[in-house]
Amino acid sequence: MATCTVNFQPTEKTVSVPVGTLVHEAAHLAGLDLNMPCGGQGRCGRCAVLVHNGHVRRRSTLRLSPADVEQGYALACQSVLEGDTTITVPPQEKIERRLVTDRTAAAIELPFAYAPARDQVLQALLVTLPPPSMDDQTDDWSRLQRALRRDHGLERVTTDLGVLRTLGRTLRDAGWQVTAIVECDPGDSSGAPARVVSVLPGDCTDRLLGAAIDIGTTSNVVYLVDLLTGRVLAEAVDYNGQIARGEDVISRIIYASKNNGLAELQDLVMQTLNQLLARAARRARVEPGEIYRATVAGNSTMLHLFLGLPPESIRLSPFITAVNQPPPIRAREIGLNIHPLASVDCLPGIASYVGADISAGVVSSGLTETDLLTLFLDVGTNGETVLGTREWLISCACSAGPAFEGAGVDHGMRATAGAIEEVWINSKTFEPAYRVIGNQAPRGLCGSGLIALLAELFVTGVMDRAGNLNQELDTPRVRHGDHGPEYVVAWAGESANGQDIVLTKVDIDNLLRAKAAIYAGYTVLCQSVGVDPADVQQVLIGGAFGQYINVEKAIQIGLLPDLPWERFRFLGNTSARGAYMALLSQEARQQIGAAASKMTYLELSADNSFYENFMSALFLPHTEISRFPSVQAALSNGRDAR
Amino acid sequence: MATCTVNFQPTEKTVSVPVGTLVHEAAHLAGLDLNMPCGGQGRCGRCAVLVHNGHVRRRSTLRLSPADVEQGYALACQSVLEGDTTITVPPQEKIERRLVTDRTAAAIELPFAYAPARDQVLQALLVTLPPPSMDDQTDDWSRLQRALRRDHGLERVTTDLGVLRTLGRTLRDAGWQVTAIVECDPGDSSGAPARVVSVLPGDCTDRLLGAAIDIGTTSNVVYLVDLLTGRVLAEAVDYNGQIARGEDVISRIIYASKNNGLAELQDLVMQTLNQLLARAARRARVEPGEIYRATVAGNSTMLHLFLGLPPESIRLSPFITAVNQPPPIRAREIGLNIHPLASVDCLPGIASYVGADISAGVVSSGLTETDLLTLFLDVGTNGETVLGTREWLISCACSAGPAFEGAGVDHGMRATAGAIEEVWINSKTFEPAYRVIGNQAPRGLCGSGLIALLAELFVTGVMDRAGNLNQELDTPRVRHGDHGPEYVVAWAGESANGQDIVLTKVDIDNLLRAKAAIYAGYTVLCQSVGVDPADVQQVLIGGAFGQYINVEKAIQIGLLPDLPWERFRFLGNTSARGAYMALLSQEARQQIGAAASKMTYLELSADNSFYENFMSALFLPHTEISRFPSVQAALSNGRDAR
Repeated sequence: MATCTVNFQPTEKTVSVPVGTLVHEAAHLAGLDLNMPCGGQGRCGRCAVLVHNGHVRRRSTLRLSPADVEQGYALACQSVLEGDTTITVPPQEKIERRLVTDRTAAAIELPFAYAPARDQVLQALLVTLPPPSMDDQTDDWSRLQRALRRDHGLERVTTDLGVLRTLGRTLRDAGWQVTAIVECDPGDSSGAPARVVSVLPGDCTDRLLGAAIDIGTTSNVVYLVDLLTGRVLAEAVDYNGQIARGEDVISRIIYASKNNGLAELQDLVMQTLNQLLARAARRARVEPGEIYRATVAGNSTMLHLFLGLPPESIRLSPFITAVNQPPPIRAREIGLNIHPLASVDCLPGIASYVGADISAGVVSSGLTETDLLTLFLDVGTNGETVLGTREWLISCACSAGPAFEGAGVDHGMRATAGAIEEVWINSKTFEPAYRVIGNQAPRGLCGSGLIALLAELFVTGVMDRAGNLNQELDTPRVRHGDHGPEYVVAWAGESANGQDIVLTKVDIDNLLRAKAAIYAGYTVLCQSVGVDPADVQQVLIGGAFGQYINVEKAIQIGLLPDLPWERFRFLGNTSARGAYMALLSQEARQQIGAAASKMTYLELSADNSFYENFMSALFLPHTEISRFPSVQAALSNGRDAR
Repeated sequence: MATCTVNFQPTEKTVSVPVGTLVHEAAHLAGLDLNMPCGGQGRCGRCAVLVHNGHVRRRSTLRLSPADVEQGYALACQSVLEGDTTITVPPQEKIERRLVTDRTAAAIELPFAYAPARDQVLQALLVTLPPPSMDDQTDDWSRLQRALRRDHGLERVTTDLGVLRTLGRTLRDAGWQVTAIVECDPGDSSGAPARVVSVLPGDCTDRLLGAAIDIGTTSNVVYLVDLLTGRVLAEAVDYNGQIARGEDVISRIIYASKNNGLAELQDLVMQTLNQLLARAARRARVEPGEIYRATVAGNSTMLHLFLGLPPESIRLSPFITAVNQPPPIRAREIGLNIHPLASVDCLPGIASYVGADISAGVVSSGLTETDLLTLFLDVGTNGETVLGTREWLISCACSAGPAFEGAGVDHGMRATAGAIEEVWINSKTFEPAYRVIGNQAPRGLCGSGLIALLAELFVTGVMDRAGNLNQELDTPRVRHGDHGPEYVVAWAGESANGQDIVLTKVDIDNLLRAKAAIYAGYTVLCQSVGVDPADVQQVLIGGAFGQYINVEKAIQIGLLPDLPWERFRFLGNTSARGAYMALLSQEARQQIGAAASKMTYLELSADNSFYENFMSALFLPHTEISRFPSVQAALSNGRDAR
């Protein structure tokens, strides 16, 4: 096989690879990490590199201008090495972490009074064994089993080879007094045996740790939990290391189906989680190896990648997961750096696009315990939506796309430092005012800023109900740009990167499609059970993004249903909270399983009424404005007096 | 750390190691495998090497003559490198394999008519799944569970991550018709779920394979078994690769407690077993990865080393194992090359020196089903002995030592080609005749040859009842050698190695101690339950060695009790046969568990009557000759007429 040598600048790293290797693969071998938010599909242009002297064949130059190509730029994910060459890698965009802060102890309210003896499956049991003698030659493991039966009433106890390998030494070094870490479901009547996870020398019953993990497509969260008190000892948060291989689940699935892509993605999320576990453990002054159990929530794709399960069929009609209720596994099977024999319990999901994050969310949000007709919304890429009460649950995913997360919008960005998160427009001058996260010069617009901007453009008449900007207005803010009409939110002189920050007609159309999808989703759910969206008694909004939405403005654009504001509750990360509840309480864990089992899933892509509702919702706030009486009233009252 | 360079001759291999490294460790790094039958204790002298130019410090020269040391010889296991040096490694004794032959299909009789549906825990189940659709988005794993429930009545089914990782691809590639390999105990009422071990494309129900494994201290045996018919497809036998690290269990335990010794011994036995599995599979034209279940018998030390469990406490009073009933494990946990998710079921043992080989043996020998008062003997190093009926079982291990296996006897050897296996002595001339395994020039004496020689020396009067050779006889065969009196069995001119083959007084004393220990063991068992050895109705002799014993001669020396010959049955490898039965029949497996649970273990080292019986048995056939009436009668009848 012919090989070629690639020299990467400015790092001066050189690698030798077979002819035909993709540039990004060669870069990876050279230890260089290129951003690939689109998962290597050639759609985002973020992995562009400068090729100095030929020998690179460009399969696609989408997202590169002819001038770029002439200068020598190529997409690393779409270009193949054909001979020796030198390549300059531009500085890669750093993922901003300024707003992501670990906390020493999060105060998370539980809907129950934690009683470990009743709720907890993990126990630290002190046992003192009579030492063996010529009159009692019982083997070490049977001796421990006998003591656990006698002192703690455990009739059937099993264990793993790993425990037996160190048992004899531990028992003897500890003078036959040890602490057994035992996993045993007190409420389980199936007769499953208890399991000894570890045996520690002496009395270690004063500490028992678990971890609740939430694997978001964007952010990962770890709670390190004291299982004796139920208290969160430390919380650690970071972006999912997979982001560089795809911003959304579809990009990740595509990446996973490439050569070794699945293993790479699993490795990336494991690196992130292991760093979070190490950080949380350091703050609590413990070792990650002392964590003896973990519960994990996340959407179906994230859990597939976490477990190393191929996610391809999630993306392809009829959209099937490998498994919705994964069997419990041991940490060592997947490389999670807690105790190698710790159980890792992945919470159950419902469908390809309504995952364990939603089962966890509906339980932790209280939806499964209420008599109120409740709408549960996760306003993110997948737009997971649940309608129900304690009696019944129906769900759908409305594929909103990542527009509200800043992707697919020219100056969109995540809600990190430099993002415009709130906008107000003067109805006379059409001049904007805005608030920036971190109080600095703006770099772009995040989801809440985009909703606010859309609403303000609409209510001030800068934009009509179809989303067309009024180019007749006497303001330089509305103009015709490279991609058609646009509104300038910030001039180059005030922005962080010296460029005008604008919202284009293309962006507006993307945002309208996203909000229409979410609206259509919950509307179809309501219709399917014969209720009117106006009858919803409570709207619970989960997801980190949801916390920052301005309800008034979200109703104005027709994203949220037109209900009295007091019916809305913003709950933050309901998925992580569900994992935390499941870690503490076997009853909560069973409720999550029951919620997943009883939840009906409505496949919208097979539903005609979804398409009709979606089309009608592409207007502001909706084709039938009577569905949004408060907006109708405000508009006919001549709007506010700004 | 100071290092030194060692050049090994004649291979010209050179390694650099820290000063202070043992010579055998350096040799190991250089890829040279030195024999260490004593486990590196400096007791056997088999690892002697020639040091050419100093820089080696000898910690012990036991087993080397002063002349050897002067010539430059050193024990590799007891000598430390102190500087650069050159070392010649003499040719290492090859382990003879000529008599160990694999067979294509062993005919092993079963005590039951094999009915897979009733007996077998492993099943190959054909399932045809309805493909998923927009109307049925059930996940792959639930879909398979549903089909197994519907088509095969399996209510609860679990699996491993490894199965889920390939499930989606297999289902789709196979057009939704697959064969599930399911492990499910039909007789289990504990509600334990069935487990899918593997999912194969299409209809593969015409083949289902398992392996029965016996790990002897000396020999390892693998039966590759067709679980559909119960037939042994192929049998493979070889010496345990650990032999080079110790001939007996004690040497192995000592070796295991050294640096990395446990891992090395586990690796060695796994190499042996994996080669046997590969050989058996090749002969049956299948792949080892198609073996979905294995049962394993062996003594407690062998099973500890197989599982990577530290065996130290087996050797130290009060002689405790880590575990007698290991939990079932998966093949991949220990590196056994069958299907990685196959269950490996190590049969249960009773005590440190009465292991799973004996539980398996008492069941496969029929002892647990008989009303006859039965003595079960494994005439090997550990001298495991069981007395009982279907109602009760009592056992002991009498530490006979390896004399009958040829160790501790100057010209002793294993029962391989060149071993004298039978001896007759002319009572007038005292000249011997002998039979050699493989019909070739003799190299030494194996166990059955040693028993025959002892008996003949005794009945011809060459040796008295205390084991003293009569040096007054008119024969050059009895003489005074380097180690005291000795009898020459073969002159140098007729032997394979040009040396006289002799039996010395020291050898005789070792053999008398060995036979006395075995005699004392079963005598103490009989006394403990109040029966006379003469009341024993049946003697079952297990172990490969047992097959070749001449009963008459074994009684003459007082090794076996003086019973009518028809009460003796030689059963060969009862341990392997027990593993085979457990592989086929869950009922047999439970009988082995029940035998292990109900068997009383008598610790002889804490038993005064054992010592008394041992001392009385150091004579031929015994201090009280009346205990051996047939021998007494023969002696008073002037012996036979040769």
